[in-house]
Amino acid sequence: MRDIHVLNGPNLNLLGIREPGIYGALTLADIERRLRDRAGARAALTFRQSNHEGDLVTWVHEAGAAGAGVILNAGAYTHTSVALRDAISGAKAEVIEVHLSNVHARESFRHHSYIAPVARGVIAGFGPLSYDLALEALLAA
Amino acid sequence: MRDIHVLNGPNLNLLGIREPGIYGALTLADIERRLRDRAGARAALTFRQSNHEGDLVTWVHEAGAAGAGVILNAGAYTHTSVALRDAISGAKAEVIEVHLSNVHARESFRHHSYIAPVARGVIAGFGPLSYDLALEALLAA
Amino acid sequence: MRDIHVLNGPNLNLLGIREPGIYGALTLADIERRLRDRAGARAALTFRQSNHEGDLVTWVHEAGAAGAGVILNAGAYTHTSVALRDAISGAKAEVIEVHLSNVHARESFRHHSYIAPVARGVIAGFGPLSYDLALEALLAA
Amino acid sequence: MRDIHVLNGPNLNLLGIREPGIYGALTLADIERRLRDRAGARAALTFRQSNHEGDLVTWVHEAGAAGAGVILNAGAYTHTSVALRDAISGAKAEVIEVHLSNVHARESFRHHSYIAPVARGVIAGFGPLSYDLALEALLAA
Amino acid sequence: MRDIHVLNGPNLNLLGIREPGIYGALTLADIERRLRDRAGARAALTFRQSNHEGDLVTWVHEAGAAGAGVILNAGAYTHTSVALRDAISGAKAEVIEVHLSNVHARESFRHHSYIAPVARGVIAGFGPLSYDLALEALLAA
Amino acid sequence: MRDIHVLNGPNLNLLGIREPGIYGALTLADIERRLRDRAGARAALTFRQSNHEGDLVTWVHEAGAAGAGVILNAGAYTHTSVALRDAISGAKAEVIEVHLSNVHARESFRHHSYIAPVARGVIAGFGPLSYDLALEALLAA
Amino acid sequence: MRDIHVLNGPNLNLLGIREPGIYGALTLADIERRLRDRAGARAALTFRQSNHEGDLVTWVHEAGAAGAGVILNAGAYTHTSVALRDAISGAKAEVIEVHLSNVHARESFRHHSYIAPVARGVIAGFGPLSYDLALEALLAA
Amino acid sequence: MRDIHVLNGPNLNLLGIREPGIYGALTLADIERRLRDRAGARAALTFRQSNHEGDLVTWVHEAGAAGAGVILNAGAYTHTSVALRDAISGAKAEVIEVHLSNVHARESFRHHSYIAPVARGVIAGFGPLSYDLALEALLAA
Amino acid sequence: MRDIHVLNGPNLNLLGIREPGIYGALTLADIERRLRDRAGARAALTFRQSNHEGDLVTWVHEAGAAGAGVILNAGAYTHTSVALRDAISGAKAEVIEVHLSNVHARESFRHHSYIAPVARGVIAGFGPLSYDLALEALLAA
Amino acid sequence: MRDIHVLNGPNLNLLGIREPGIYGALTLADIERRLRDRAGARAALTFRQSNHEGDLVTWVHEAGAAGAGVILNAGAYTHTSVALRDAISGAKAEVIEVHLSNVHARESFRHHSYIAPVARGVIAGFGPLSYDLALEALLAA
Amino acid sequence: MRDIHVLNGPNLNLLGIREPGIYGALTLADIERRLRDRAGARAALTFRQSNHEGDLVTWVHEAGAAGAGVILNAGAYTHTSVALRDAISGAKAEVIEVHLSNVHARESFRHHSYIAPVARGVIAGFGPLSYDLALEALLAA
Amino acid sequence: MRDIHVLNGPNLNLLGIREPGIYGALTLADIERRLRDRAGARAALTFRQSNHEGDLVTWVHEAGAAGAGVILNAGAYTHTSVALRDAISGAKAEVIEVHLSNVHARESFRHHSYIAPVARGVIAGFGPLSYDLALEALLAA
Repeated sequence: MRDIHVLNGPNLNLLGIREPGIYGALTLADIERRLRDRAGARAALTFRQSNHEGDLVTWVHEAGAAGAGVILNAGAYTHTSVALRDAISGAKAEVIEVHLSNVHARESFRHHSYIAPVARGVIAGFGPLSYDLALEALLAA
Repeated sequence: MRDIHVLNGPNLNLLGIREPGIYGALTLADIERRLRDRAGARAALTFRQSNHEGDLVTWVHEAGAAGAGVILNAGAYTHTSVALRDAISGAKAEVIEVHLSNVHARESFRHHSYIAPVARGVIAGFGPLSYDLALEALLAA
Repeated sequence: MRDIHVLNGPNLNLLGIREPGIYGALTLADIERRLRDRAGARAALTFRQSNHEGDLVTWVHEAGAAGAGVILNAGAYTHTSVALRDAISGAKAEVIEVHLSNVHARESFRHHSYIAPVARGVIAGFGPLSYDLALEALLAA
Repeated sequence: MRDIHVLNGPNLNLLGIREPGIYGALTLADIERRLRDRAGARAALTFRQSNHEGDLVTWVHEAGAAGAGVILNAGAYTHTSVALRDAISGAKAEVIEVHLSNVHARESFRHHSYIAPVARGVIAGFGPLSYDLALEALLAA
Repeated sequence: MRDIHVLNGPNLNLLGIREPGIYGALTLADIERRLRDRAGARAALTFRQSNHEGDLVTWVHEAGAAGAGVILNAGAYTHTSVALRDAISGAKAEVIEVHLSNVHARESFRHHSYIAPVARGVIAGFGPLSYDLALEALLAA
Repeated sequence: MRDIHVLNGPNLNLLGIREPGIYGALTLADIERRLRDRAGARAALTFRQSNHEGDLVTWVHEAGAAGAGVILNAGAYTHTSVALRDAISGAKAEVIEVHLSNVHARESFRHHSYIAPVARGVIAGFGPLSYDLALEALLAA
Repeated sequence: MRDIHVLNGPNLNLLGIREPGIYGALTLADIERRLRDRAGARAALTFRQSNHEGDLVTWVHEAGAAGAGVILNAGAYTHTSVALRDAISGAKAEVIEVHLSNVHARESFRHHSYIAPVARGVIAGFGPLSYDLALEALLAA
Repeated sequence: MRDIHVLNGPNLNLLGIREPGIYGALTLADIERRLRDRAGARAALTFRQSNHEGDLVTWVHEAGAAGAGVILNAGAYTHTSVALRDAISGAKAEVIEVHLSNVHARESFRHHSYIAPVARGVIAGFGPLSYDLALEALLAA
Repeated sequence: MRDIHVLNGPNLNLLGIREPGIYGALTLADIERRLRDRAGARAALTFRQSNHEGDLVTWVHEAGAAGAGVILNAGAYTHTSVALRDAISGAKAEVIEVHLSNVHARESFRHHSYIAPVARGVIAGFGPLSYDLALEALLAA
Repeated sequence: MRDIHVLNGPNLNLLGIREPGIYGALTLADIERRLRDRAGARAALTFRQSNHEGDLVTWVHEAGAAGAGVILNAGAYTHTSVALRDAISGAKAEVIEVHLSNVHARESFRHHSYIAPVARGVIAGFGPLSYDLALEALLAA
Repeated sequence: MRDIHVLNGPNLNLLGIREPGIYGALTLADIERRLRDRAGARAALTFRQSNHEGDLVTWVHEAGAAGAGVILNAGAYTHTSVALRDAISGAKAEVIEVHLSNVHARESFRHHSYIAPVARGVIAGFGPLSYDLALEALLAA
Repeated sequence: MRDIHVLNGPNLNLLGIREPGIYGALTLADIERRLRDRAGARAALTFRQSNHEGDLVTWVHEAGAAGAGVILNAGAYTHTSVALRDAISGAKAEVIEVHLSNVHARESFRHHSYIAPVARGVIAGFGPLSYDLALEALLAA
């Protein structure tokens, strides 16, 4: 049974609550529930969210120490956080970068990711399904 | 009576305490007092300061949830925080970006604001008066 | 009684006449009237508009010579006119840069202002209210 | 039963034949077989490869005309082909961009994709599993 | 006896624990011990680490208020934090920027420091010895 | 009978008078005559030239107010005038940008046009024929 | 009777078939028919389309060898093909670059043309009329 | 007796009147007088100033038509006016670009001149003496 | 006897036929003949030309599979083709990049080669002799 | 009698000997003679040339130590030598930068001068007359 | 006893002699004396200065051949000399880059060092103490 | 018998002595010997090396004056020396730029050559053979 940490960054706590027309009606809790259903007995999920860059850095350390796989939706910190990049390469965690939206179809400053070069891979643009695919990727590895 | 959150970012706690020759003798507490005087019964003010990007993100969420207007002096995070930008557009808060100094007369990395494109407007360069003008703008809207 | 020159640049003569759906129904004459009402006996207003960069340069000189404060909506010349910048620093006029729209939410070439670094401050995004706030700033100084 | 076209770009015919130490021992034919197995009765797969940009453009047109979903590994043309981008938006095909390797961990000219902004989403870095995940994404849609 | 605050930024808590082959076997606690030995009665050391940008900002304020010298290894925040830069110039603390590794021999985004222009000096590339040299510099001043 | 304003910018008054070897022997008056001949009863032409950016701005306003089509050879202001761009979008005039020479075969600062994005179309490189083609385009619309 | 080759690049075969709301209901065959009508006995038209860059290169050679004029809508290759540019200057063909849409009003990567500097002129933004105007330009030359 | 036009651009009318501490006590009239003295019978001087770009363009045309040499202090238009550059190359006037201050020791946007590449030469940094040297250069030619 | 593939890219079929004044009177067939003479019994030459990027990609694959050395004059694709670069590194062919002209003395977009970093070496500027020197280099290796 | 050092940089020893059609028939020795004639008793000239950057650095030091004015034609080192810039500001010498040709009409890498910002002024484009004008400027100071 | 070469670049011979108010009253000879005192019997110092890039290159070779450590204050060549960088990596010398001033607080062209990536580390901003710290670093290694 | 000067720049004196594993065991003297053998009676070789940019400038002058061909391995000065470029175009020497390594496969600052645009051609990446090929090119010309 694989240990998997699902780490969510800034503003993802707003999901489903505000702007459902755009981001869908699912809350982050819904995504967690759905992911736990899919994982079933295949993985033990730790599911977290913070608006603080430092929390994400610490949580990546913890995942690395626990030998867990990481599904990381770093939100805006994807584009600005060298600290998170260093956490990933330092903690030697296997990280999959996910995004709900297709970041490449948005503003140009969202086209660059500090995290991607040290992640195993990237999945973007599939809404909550992005998390599911990342889960499958970790379990298939 | 309009609900208005006045959110102050990093280093603004130093105001008036250090370098009064440059930034004036007013502390952030003085600015708060002065602003409450001007607001009187026209607005209920919530006045906050943090050095943490994540706190500002969370507070913008709270302001949005409360339907409050926001006077936001994000300090240095103005220039580096995509997370704060996303908080504003996600929370659909009416935000006015303020600065004590004229940021355009300083280093070039201060000329760019991640926040301005999603704010209603920008007021910069008038010292504590910047807050007053933002208050009037929110109340006039 | 403060002497204040309100200088308006290119295309502002179209205000209210064309595209009222976007820029509002107020004409530049309406803005002048409204601003005179607010100023009352507190300020003597000179209100001008030109599509010529050279006129604006000359008018800034005149304001400087008269010791007047300046509310300057330089329109497109904000982004292209070094001459206007030099006029402001040469004439040593106290200038407040105003914009009706939030220029930072528009094309990237509108994010740079040659004028802002030599102005006292900037107010942008509040429609005709931008002028009012600038007036208050000059009178409060 | 969903119609899905799997389109492979330049150099992917070398897969598994050369440099198995790097790209793995699977040939493109192996990937096709593996994908057909996974798809089973859920999808009818058309599997193609070409070193010609023009062929990929034409095949995207055909997929669009057939109302098929597209799994597109455009290889190097990802980074240089505006024609392929236009084909996708013109043909209104639902396209998922896939990459075997994590392109963001390679040379900087591979960080930009002309295709991603008009694709539904991107999956990169999982080797042959990238194709599987894309298949699941199309079938889940 | 000089008051000296040694402030460590994100991921430095991983030191010596993970990747000893690269960063050496010394933990941050070892570095602290070693530095206290060298300081002896010459300096009173306060030694801190945080993954939060905001904590570092606050700690620089505290050092400034205490009139302490600062040895600052801001880690990744060196390259992204305008807030930390403002903290240093606002708090008027004497700060020496240190790095364990030679940041100039790494990725290009590590070549730029927001902190260096407001620090007294920079010492980089000497492993734990970087801290020792910074201590000597502060005591020699 | 279509109302068409033909507006010519800086230095076009030199046409045919100086450097006939390069720009041809036709003066601007010749171009006007030739264009009137071609237009015949199909269009009422207003033909103007100025070296002042502000005049061109004003004339675009007038064309817009008159509901006239505009053939605009803005000369050097094509590359530097945001004011002219704003005049076109503000006045909602149908404008065709023309150039005598192929601006793309000249210095790189002539490759960018502030006007083209708000014009209906661009015709460049055909000498006086550029005006003729623009006339046909306006009459064909 | 002038020999004229009308060469169309990638995705233009989609014209009129898909997205008629945007690009109009005319197919490329319609444009050909319309152009032949206008040409009448004045020109012998060769009308071709390909999604392959190499075909366009070869066809430009053929036009040059035949001494034919060229109306070239290179579509996306306009912005990426140095090969096509070299074909034009090498074959010494008289080429007019045409575009249906106003490329300058679209994404910034469409503002640059490798072809324009070696073409006689450019006509963009007039829909099928762009071809007509190019025909007139070639016949008037 | 050489015909020489001395053309002065925006803000030069402020010379000597404002900021004498910086630009010296000489007015533009003083510079004219001083230059006439030095020229004596060697040159017939026409001395002009305008804040309008269009006036300078027209005056360069007039100088070219008169076969006069030109001493051009275009002020801020040096850095922004393509129109003035075109006027110089179109009018085939012999132009010497002069500046009172050393523009290279000021802001970076003053380091680029649109005029210099089409001028005979440049003289900058010598105050009113810059005009004298330009006069000698024209008379020595 | 070394197997050597000489691969020629777009527009090289024009060689000697058009613009002999610039590129010399030799056709590509002449170059082939001349190279075969020089090679004699030392090498078996395969000599090919195509205007299609995809053909060159495929031919590099074939050369790699045959263990042949490659003399590659990719023409314009040198500057735009990531696909060709990937073909070379994927096929592990020993490739020498050649150019007839000195590409560094031409437009700046010709100064960058996608191919050179994965080639063994580069020879440019010697006309047909460039091929001869490349042949000697392959045979000397 | 003013002490003036005339320092000439790389390749100026070729003057008049090679390419007289371009640079004129005057050798550097001719320029020296001509300048001595003009100086007469007004100045004691030291005239030097070197192809070594280090020599120019040393000579600027010597001029500074001697309190001499400097006419500096640094040739190519103008555009690349930070060392020479530092020599000028360190030696506190009054330096006038001269160029025979109009550097702004040449390649773009010649438009930037490391020296100009620390020189008193710049004179470029007048051939040997540039030296004469610099001499007059130094003597007039 | 460690062999250490202290190599000083352009303009450092001015130290202490000119501008003592800025750089301090110590001459380079004073720094040498002070460093010899500190080194005592721990190191044999070779102390050199040159304004010539080539001398520094040669001296780095000599240090490498002697197996000596190097304290290198390359002055302005830090920012422009690829030759010096190659000397360091070629000679395999252990080099510590030192600067008297904090180069990061000066002009932006001083923020880049060609040397740092091949040096062991960098020490900047401590005046003569920078040399002392470098000495300690070499001896501690 | 052709006169040929072989000029070698900075650090090439290290060849074969240090890092033979990378650059091979041949010294510069070996390369000279080998080249003299190949030249035999076909050319008179002058073979030189210097770490000084100025020496190379002077030697290019001498080669030009002697009407000699030049094989120039300018090493690091290739990328930084405008002086050397000017020497080549001023001396009108026929120069072939050679490099031992494939500079395009190294750091990006080695991809630009100031020399190549004024050289006849470039040969890079063939080790000592690069010199041989350059010799053949000069003799074949």
